[in-house]
Amino acid sequence: MSISETVEVTGHLMDSGILGRILEDVREYGGDYVIDKFDVGHRAHDSSRATITVTADDDEALQRLLMRLQTRGVNQVDPGEAAVTTAELDGVFPDGFYSTTNLPTKVRLDGRWYDVVNPEMDCGLVVETDGDAVRIVTLPMSDVEAGMSVVTGASGVRVQVPQVAKGDEAFGFMESDVSSEKPQAVLVRQVAEGMREARAAGKKVLWVGGPGVVHTGAAPAMVAMVRAGFVDVLFAGNALATHDIEAALYGTSLGVDLAMGRGVEHGHEHHIRALNTIRKEGSIRAAVENGVLEGGIMHALVTHDKRFVLVGSVRDDGPLPDVHTDVIEGQRAMRAELADVGFCLMVATMLHSVATGNILPASIPLVCVDINPATVTKLSDRGSSQARGIVTDVGLFLEQLAGELVPEYRRA
Amino acid sequence: MSISETVEVTGHLMDSGILGRILEDVREYGGDYVIDKFDVGHRAHDSSRATITVTADDDEALQRLLMRLQTRGVNQVDPGEAAVTTAELDGVFPDGFYSTTNLPTKVRLDGRWYDVVNPEMDCGLVVETDGDAVRIVTLPMSDVEAGMSVVTGASGVRVQVPQVAKGDEAFGFMESDVSSEKPQAVLVRQVAEGMREARAAGKKVLWVGGPGVVHTGAAPAMVAMVRAGFVDVLFAGNALATHDIEAALYGTSLGVDLAMGRGVEHGHEHHIRALNTIRKEGSIRAAVENGVLEGGIMHALVTHDKRFVLVGSVRDDGPLPDVHTDVIEGQRAMRAELADVGFCLMVATMLHSVATGNILPASIPLVCVDINPATVTKLSDRGSSQARGIVTDVGLFLEQLAGELVPEYRRA
Amino acid sequence: MSISETVEVTGHLMDSGILGRILEDVREYGGDYVIDKFDVGHRAHDSSRATITVTADDDEALQRLLMRLQTRGVNQVDPGEAAVTTAELDGVFPDGFYSTTNLPTKVRLDGRWYDVVNPEMDCGLVVETDGDAVRIVTLPMSDVEAGMSVVTGASGVRVQVPQVAKGDEAFGFMESDVSSEKPQAVLVRQVAEGMREARAAGKKVLWVGGPGVVHTGAAPAMVAMVRAGFVDVLFAGNALATHDIEAALYGTSLGVDLAMGRGVEHGHEHHIRALNTIRKEGSIRAAVENGVLEGGIMHALVTHDKRFVLVGSVRDDGPLPDVHTDVIEGQRAMRAELADVGFCLMVATMLHSVATGNILPASIPLVCVDINPATVTKLSDRGSSQARGIVTDVGLFLEQLAGELVPEYRRA
Amino acid sequence: MSISETVEVTGHLMDSGILGRILEDVREYGGDYVIDKFDVGHRAHDSSRATITVTADDDEALQRLLMRLQTRGVNQVDPGEAAVTTAELDGVFPDGFYSTTNLPTKVRLDGRWYDVVNPEMDCGLVVETDGDAVRIVTLPMSDVEAGMSVVTGASGVRVQVPQVAKGDEAFGFMESDVSSEKPQAVLVRQVAEGMREARAAGKKVLWVGGPGVVHTGAAPAMVAMVRAGFVDVLFAGNALATHDIEAALYGTSLGVDLAMGRGVEHGHEHHIRALNTIRKEGSIRAAVENGVLEGGIMHALVTHDKRFVLVGSVRDDGPLPDVHTDVIEGQRAMRAELADVGFCLMVATMLHSVATGNILPASIPLVCVDINPATVTKLSDRGSSQARGIVTDVGLFLEQLAGELVPEYRRA
Repeated sequence: MSISETVEVTGHLMDSGILGRILEDVREYGGDYVIDKFDVGHRAHDSSRATITVTADDDEALQRLLMRLQTRGVNQVDPGEAAVTTAELDGVFPDGFYSTTNLPTKVRLDGRWYDVVNPEMDCGLVVETDGDAVRIVTLPMSDVEAGMSVVTGASGVRVQVPQVAKGDEAFGFMESDVSSEKPQAVLVRQVAEGMREARAAGKKVLWVGGPGVVHTGAAPAMVAMVRAGFVDVLFAGNALATHDIEAALYGTSLGVDLAMGRGVEHGHEHHIRALNTIRKEGSIRAAVENGVLEGGIMHALVTHDKRFVLVGSVRDDGPLPDVHTDVIEGQRAMRAELADVGFCLMVATMLHSVATGNILPASIPLVCVDINPATVTKLSDRGSSQARGIVTDVGLFLEQLAGELVPEYRRA
Repeated sequence: MSISETVEVTGHLMDSGILGRILEDVREYGGDYVIDKFDVGHRAHDSSRATITVTADDDEALQRLLMRLQTRGVNQVDPGEAAVTTAELDGVFPDGFYSTTNLPTKVRLDGRWYDVVNPEMDCGLVVETDGDAVRIVTLPMSDVEAGMSVVTGASGVRVQVPQVAKGDEAFGFMESDVSSEKPQAVLVRQVAEGMREARAAGKKVLWVGGPGVVHTGAAPAMVAMVRAGFVDVLFAGNALATHDIEAALYGTSLGVDLAMGRGVEHGHEHHIRALNTIRKEGSIRAAVENGVLEGGIMHALVTHDKRFVLVGSVRDDGPLPDVHTDVIEGQRAMRAELADVGFCLMVATMLHSVATGNILPASIPLVCVDINPATVTKLSDRGSSQARGIVTDVGLFLEQLAGELVPEYRRA
Repeated sequence: MSISETVEVTGHLMDSGILGRILEDVREYGGDYVIDKFDVGHRAHDSSRATITVTADDDEALQRLLMRLQTRGVNQVDPGEAAVTTAELDGVFPDGFYSTTNLPTKVRLDGRWYDVVNPEMDCGLVVETDGDAVRIVTLPMSDVEAGMSVVTGASGVRVQVPQVAKGDEAFGFMESDVSSEKPQAVLVRQVAEGMREARAAGKKVLWVGGPGVVHTGAAPAMVAMVRAGFVDVLFAGNALATHDIEAALYGTSLGVDLAMGRGVEHGHEHHIRALNTIRKEGSIRAAVENGVLEGGIMHALVTHDKRFVLVGSVRDDGPLPDVHTDVIEGQRAMRAELADVGFCLMVATMLHSVATGNILPASIPLVCVDINPATVTKLSDRGSSQARGIVTDVGLFLEQLAGELVPEYRRA
Repeated sequence: MSISETVEVTGHLMDSGILGRILEDVREYGGDYVIDKFDVGHRAHDSSRATITVTADDDEALQRLLMRLQTRGVNQVDPGEAAVTTAELDGVFPDGFYSTTNLPTKVRLDGRWYDVVNPEMDCGLVVETDGDAVRIVTLPMSDVEAGMSVVTGASGVRVQVPQVAKGDEAFGFMESDVSSEKPQAVLVRQVAEGMREARAAGKKVLWVGGPGVVHTGAAPAMVAMVRAGFVDVLFAGNALATHDIEAALYGTSLGVDLAMGRGVEHGHEHHIRALNTIRKEGSIRAAVENGVLEGGIMHALVTHDKRFVLVGSVRDDGPLPDVHTDVIEGQRAMRAELADVGFCLMVATMLHSVATGNILPASIPLVCVDINPATVTKLSDRGSSQARGIVTDVGLFLEQLAGELVPEYRRA
């Protein structure tokens, strides 16, 4: 016995290799397919449309395959109505729950299509009704509560893959792959352009940073960009903030004497005292207001009223009083800052980059800069398909970016 | 004005390059020194002794330098008495608190030397008195409470650096550096020997693992070692456990079809359902007892009554109900398992390896296995000087280790 | 003004993403295209066929684009006759020469199709006539001589891309990408199977190795495989042979005391003496026959009458008398060993792997094993599309491979 | 039976950890030692002196140990006279030949000390007499001829290790280790300063470069430095020159469209035609003079009468007519350019960096820049102890270096 559904997908199908990946998905989920119809674009910029009947062994397998295919932008020809099931336990989705993508998504209920408010991958879809008003939101597993209405199965859900016209957009250059052998000056200018466009559109620029920002001596460059308004929100861990504060208090950061460019082996004794100093003040803001902390990135964020969310990890010392020690609380605090973000730059952190990639809608341009190619690759592998990677030296990159964005900085 | 103190250090001073690092520390802390006396060992296995007067600008700088030197095993000739100050705030040490090493440490109070119960780096020393009984424990910054008695300054504290007779000990081979170009079969045998010795001494073997253990197909090897009694405790994150459970439930783990050796791109849909399934059961143990989870590493740990501590991170999905979402709570849970650990093997995780290195006494042999040399280097840089690194393929390494430790496994 | 040609391509076009890459090529060469016809395979294993008209600004641009497309297996619908031009200078091709792929290739002359004898990429096609007999061979630029007949332009040339039915073949697992997170035991078995198949078909097994084979302690494993007949030819540099011989003469290789697993820093003094010793004997074979060299990989190759080609590099000491110091002579010596090769394994060398990839026909299965992912990636990027990569520890990999291929070795 | 010799060493012995390494050498060569005397420097900048009696099993072992110790700057207290043996075969040193270091070296003959003209590691010492005049030169194994007088054993040879006063010199910062987490702007300035100092002293600046210089878009920066006189000699392979020329002829280099920052997959067709074009002209200089080559690094070198040595490798296509295809000839051509070199910068090439490190005296400052830490590490491991490493992005580094050295470039 087997069960089938007809799906369709539109776009630069051959161009992008997407069709191959769709058919691979079908096989990997143990299904089969027949290509019913394939309308090919004749010229370079035409788009194509394929209609495919996919078959699986039973309905459960079919539903899971259909959800999988939606991550590729493949929708049912006849989407039907969404099925909704009530969650029975806090923190547990009903069996067969629809597992979300980070793509723009619509859900059909009672013949009407609703936009999902906040696309986020690996979540469930919760239907909230308030009188006649219906609102469909993504909710992570940990936040679902017994009694909530959760979409199950793939029926009645449509996703939309952003159509990228090759060669047109600012980040076209980074399409194909991650490389350390790319002309870097061009990349710097394109990132600067992305930030300016976001700002011009009234959107926020989100930074995600690791301690390498401080170690590579790029704190002054980042401070200049905070002052010039190119850093609206910072997501980081305890390490970036502590090393930045340590540098401001003692002129060092873990392993580096910044003024002299000389290595200080270990030197974590400074680090632990910096933590104690801020804990004594009660918060980073209090340390700034009391005149204890007088420079660095965190100081610049506080004095320019910018937002930051620090989320801890199991390797933290201290931590700083501002750090969310509960990682699930930390994720919630990060989500709360995503509204109106129009550009995201990730620098020198795998942990927080992946964490941010997990919650960011695919529609937000995302550039990841790291000297380690694995960071960038991991991000794409985890589903942040819009991520563009630059494998380069973080210190020199931020130096050049500041020179591009802040003319005074270059002249200094 | 300046202030001096005379310190001494004993051991294979020239041999180990330790004296050079001591003198570098003095300079890096802005101090100066005179070598008063240097008794050199004449033959290869003799030890040397140096007496050095170090000078700093003021007492605060001197105390900090002396604490720094203690991480090298350098003690004051006239240690004096420990100074004790009362903490005034929860979670904040008094100014000038003694910042600990992970070395065996003694504290002198009222003319008597007390062993510090649980050496751990980057902590404070808290004096607990119960009638006449005095107990000195390390306490992380986050756990100090107002009213506690905390050692300040370096007086009255002695540390002891383990004397490593080169070429004698099991792990002599790894002394000099991290390398991927070492004869691997020899290293496997030496790790096996370290585990057997720990077990023969009635000590526990601690494993710290990342999801690479599952991705490289090494779960069966690890299960064999759990069954044979070579895994007493496992420290890991949400990822290792989830991928292990996903593999047990669906035969896949993030990106890999284990039976066929074929890559499944993404495939996180399995992953998110595995999380939901265990959350529904309430715990991993419950899932095992209810017959939902029937294989894999976590199953083996539960059925053989072994311990595990899972600590979350900000990039987690789910997480599993057993995961500590508060990282400071997670650190406490990890510390609680350290008693009687006699050997520690870290495999394929930078985050949890550094976290464990942070809390592990330097006296516990520690081997770190990773395909990425940076993980091993980072561990040593953070102060786990006893760490020995093996840069190799995790899957083949565990396969060979199981073959070495569990003869039946090899024959299978 | 512009000029067009109609081309066609057959195969699993969508599946493999190949069509996307074809269209990208057209754009990158400044051309344009219209898809005239697209017959899509309806079911999973059907193949598709596309007919495309490509257009370029002038004939030179068109010819270059057509040659480029042939690397994708795209041929002209009406291939016409090959144009042949006489080379005017030694070592220089005529303008507009046909630049070869490493795919099976046919050339049409006087209405008849001739197979190219030895496909190799980045060469020219030389027409040799001997009375009525016509033979078409690839020739590298350095070997062309004035007066030779060289094919120019893309007319009259057809290439054939091997059709890989996904999931069917032995190496299907490695299709998509390079990864260090794959179940290694499966990969080892598949490489062993590939070697056995080659041998069963009466073909030779070619190894390409770097000094890491010796450093990781894998020489005994490789010796066992030489003895068991799984190494017919070895391509290497001065380093592998020197370190192998150094280990046989002194029990060390650059930086490693193999018996003890202890690092010897530098130690190149052994290395330079090993070179001098063999130079004194006149050749590796003479050293074996005179009883000077009594063990190791090179000894095993000599005593089992296997072939080896050693080609030098600018960083060589010595070198050994058997080393080709002229790299172009070295390439010729390597080419001379390619006949009847049925499987190629590359281990721990980027330089010689790329060099071998350059001259190997695409029809020979090729597996590249290295702890450094960049080696494998570079190989594919340079055009060895058949290359399958395994990112793992070379020492453990060869240990396991020997265990798989040589049952006695496992029991030892 | 055993045999002894008394040696001495002077310098910042403890500081530098050098004594430990000396004693390790003794053990690793199977010898034993007694420290006879140790005069310790009392204050930070005093130097120390150790007198040590080393013992080995027989004279051959002792001589080899003494040669080894000389690489550490350890000399015999009573050096005696050099023993000289006649080479019996071309290309083969006499048994027991003195294996050189790259340190300043003196040889004592008939009671008189002669400076070795051209220190180079892993060579022999050849005594040339012309009437009364005696000249002692290093000669690589491949260049020795039957009848030459070669120094054997360690007697009568003294080496001098450059005394590095820590913190004083320009490159003090890089002493300890290789790191990607260093403040990059400081490093750039220090490299610029090193070049300016060399030039001010009338010395030449030697560059060693790989194709990454072109791929990262740094060719214009390098051209600016050639024009400004900061590139006197370039050592490279076929790849850098070919990709540079390809970029000048077609606006592309392997894989990159430089103007647009877009990746061109493969694109080796351009590459092979660029080679053919220059081969047709006969040389790079001819191509410049005939107006065929009008831009890029090679063009700048030719038009500014700077020197370059291109040495081939087995993976080369073509190669360019200027490339030495015999690697031993290539080494000779490189050696011929070393006179008066006062600073060496290595960028983005492991092969040519190691090759240059092999022949460069230890007295020449040497900085190695690569995004891959392994390149830098390998260089030091091979004996270029003066090598300072910068792990960074090559493109941005050269961009900044040009901005520092050539004010007009920055303003452009």
